[in-house]
Amino acid sequence: MKILVTGFDPFGGAHINPATEAIKLLPQQINGAEIITIQIPTVFRKSIDVLFRAIKKESPDMVICIGQAGGRYDITVERVAINVDDARIEDNEGNLPIDSPIFEDGAPAYFSDLPIKAMVQAMQAANIPASISNTAGTFVCNHLMYAALHYASQYQPDMKVGFIHIPYLVEQVVGKANTPSMNIQDIVRGLTVAIHAAIENKRDIKVQGGAIC
Amino acid sequence: MKILVTGFDPFGGAHINPATEAIKLLPQQINGAEIITIQIPTVFRKSIDVLFRAIKKESPDMVICIGQAGGRYDITVERVAINVDDARIEDNEGNLPIDSPIFEDGAPAYFSDLPIKAMVQAMQAANIPASISNTAGTFVCNHLMYAALHYASQYQPDMKVGFIHIPYLVEQVVGKANTPSMNIQDIVRGLTVAIHAAIENKRDIKVQGGAIC
Amino acid sequence: MKILVTGFDPFGGAHINPATEAIKLLPQQINGAEIITIQIPTVFRKSIDVLFRAIKKESPDMVICIGQAGGRYDITVERVAINVDDARIEDNEGNLPIDSPIFEDGAPAYFSDLPIKAMVQAMQAANIPASISNTAGTFVCNHLMYAALHYASQYQPDMKVGFIHIPYLVEQVVGKANTPSMNIQDIVRGLTVAIHAAIENKRDIKVQGGAIC
Amino acid sequence: MKILVTGFDPFGGAHINPATEAIKLLPQQINGAEIITIQIPTVFRKSIDVLFRAIKKESPDMVICIGQAGGRYDITVERVAINVDDARIEDNEGNLPIDSPIFEDGAPAYFSDLPIKAMVQAMQAANIPASISNTAGTFVCNHLMYAALHYASQYQPDMKVGFIHIPYLVEQVVGKANTPSMNIQDIVRGLTVAIHAAIENKRDIKVQGGAIC
Repeated sequence: MKILVTGFDPFGGAHINPATEAIKLLPQQINGAEIITIQIPTVFRKSIDVLFRAIKKESPDMVICIGQAGGRYDITVERVAINVDDARIEDNEGNLPIDSPIFEDGAPAYFSDLPIKAMVQAMQAANIPASISNTAGTFVCNHLMYAALHYASQYQPDMKVGFIHIPYLVEQVVGKANTPSMNIQDIVRGLTVAIHAAIENKRDIKVQGGAIC
Repeated sequence: MKILVTGFDPFGGAHINPATEAIKLLPQQINGAEIITIQIPTVFRKSIDVLFRAIKKESPDMVICIGQAGGRYDITVERVAINVDDARIEDNEGNLPIDSPIFEDGAPAYFSDLPIKAMVQAMQAANIPASISNTAGTFVCNHLMYAALHYASQYQPDMKVGFIHIPYLVEQVVGKANTPSMNIQDIVRGLTVAIHAAIENKRDIKVQGGAIC
Repeated sequence: MKILVTGFDPFGGAHINPATEAIKLLPQQINGAEIITIQIPTVFRKSIDVLFRAIKKESPDMVICIGQAGGRYDITVERVAINVDDARIEDNEGNLPIDSPIFEDGAPAYFSDLPIKAMVQAMQAANIPASISNTAGTFVCNHLMYAALHYASQYQPDMKVGFIHIPYLVEQVVGKANTPSMNIQDIVRGLTVAIHAAIENKRDIKVQGGAIC
Repeated sequence: MKILVTGFDPFGGAHINPATEAIKLLPQQINGAEIITIQIPTVFRKSIDVLFRAIKKESPDMVICIGQAGGRYDITVERVAINVDDARIEDNEGNLPIDSPIFEDGAPAYFSDLPIKAMVQAMQAANIPASISNTAGTFVCNHLMYAALHYASQYQPDMKVGFIHIPYLVEQVVGKANTPSMNIQDIVRGLTVAIHAAIENKRDIKVQGGAIC
């Protein structure tokens, strides 16, 4: 089994992106599966090009994209990607799409086909704070997750696709008041057990995990 | 023009629901349109039945559902509803659906066809804190929003549909540490200008409004 | 009975200060007491000069200073003022004192001699979110509260002194993500019942009100 | 040089206290000083008895007490302790003091005589989020800090005293929504460099560090 794990490069003026830092530290094998990692530019469209090229080259069984969600307290496994780009800040090449569909012919949304609750439970069992998220935003993270799921639905329905958001690293919040963070070792440990659980793919886990509102 | 505005009854052990309180105070006419209000039970399926019956009876040109989002700081206009029920607490009749589609034949998601950014801007211009939200959760709020959009897509494509989440009322957070709230008069004023903007339907507003992550 | 209520002018680049706005709207009489209001410059030392001059002119029985605590969720009655100025931003005349005592001969701290818990309870009973605070910071708010208590201890031991912090106004947080606020009417109502309770001075109220840590 | 470092036992129904966990992992020597650690019961009065007995036995040059501040985002060095016990929950032996002085003959407050800003800067320079706090609360943490400073002022003016609050551990917030935490290794590293800086005692550091309000 082969798993492609992607991480974005720094954006929005930051010098590091925890996603890039984390994928560097992932083991080469998890639960018997080969882990291939690539860095993705935080750029609309170009991110998709880089991902699709890697998918074509590697033919992975599973794609898990990792991104930074500054301000979140825990590791969040995304449930769904929606067919819209709507940027509040420019990406790394100055693009600022507003209310544009990602693929004109795409579904309004795609649900991740990873066992997202089993992944959250595995992280929690390993003492890593984790939860389900119902929005990957409308910036390049959602863009890439949507594109990967769209690709799978069109060309490779057996390829499983998911997205995991990780908090700021501890060193990123020094001097910032009231901003949550997570240690890189905890993030890597969380991602590792989440990927492990994704490989086992226990589909039957049906636990309360929704958001109230 | 006729607008049906719905508000949920209290749930989760609360004695009041700001949505119910707010719709009672809406004016009977906004921007020339007639405002019809109904209370909706916070119950999966039954909420949909009550809504669909009201739509059939009233034949509104627009449906705007209002719900409480405890913990949010401002009034949020929802962008999208997704085809999943996933409850963390029981609804008012003890239902606890987990990872179930709302309509087996429904689209994965429906985007609101209200001018959500114009509505946010109108509230901000009226000095009411407001923003776009990219998730209505997976409880009865998303359930009802999804159902209304599904209904419109199937039977009444000219009927506009949207959802607005409002914070806790001031009196709901007395004694609760660090919990944001909003005054009922500010909520009603916000909803009124948002509905006013929805009626004007300035579709051309294209401003940065996305979430970064 | 005569009560002097002070409010700071805007600082830190803001155009309004909720304290100034709130004291303008206070009734002229509360619970039989005459309410005198003055605006205080957000300037180290000068704020004290203005306050002391007003105290000498008015000979109030009670002094209650009001200040903005941006980021707080509720109205907080301060328990204590400490003998230190330590500014993170410049005041309105460019002063930036660091780790300096306010009065060289002053006590390390003075406790407010208002019935702070009765004031909090009165606000909560009136459906206004309120709590005790154990720190008035180290900027001009604490500076003024300390000075007023120091003055009373030196020259006028019968004069009661206290400080109330109020959140941002609703209009101040438009466009700011995740920032709590309060409606000016609720603030004025809260201050009014708090002052009413201070006048009654029910000293016997002994309820759990501490902070855990 | 000898430094006594104290950590509280678990309280409020928790199974662990990060303070106890952290002091176990401190090195036996820091910057040439001997580090003695003791656990302190989270009990009013008894905590003081245990501390005073240890001070008499060890005759330390410096006392640094460590406590948990659940809900804080970073490591905070306390500036001041105030002469009041005011509990919101019972301590570990059911005591619930309300608005009581800690020592009838004590000063209203004592300022820590550690170089608190140098300690914060040392932690930040080591990539550990840290800041000054102006309140240690009114529970057993403030109680112990106050008592240690009172003891020093009465009997041992050369003994330096301070208090450091640490956040929840990562494992303590699993399943708790929106609660900040810190990895035990980061906490230990932070405490170690803070103690290192306290020993160097660079008193001349005068930087902006105050709270705005």
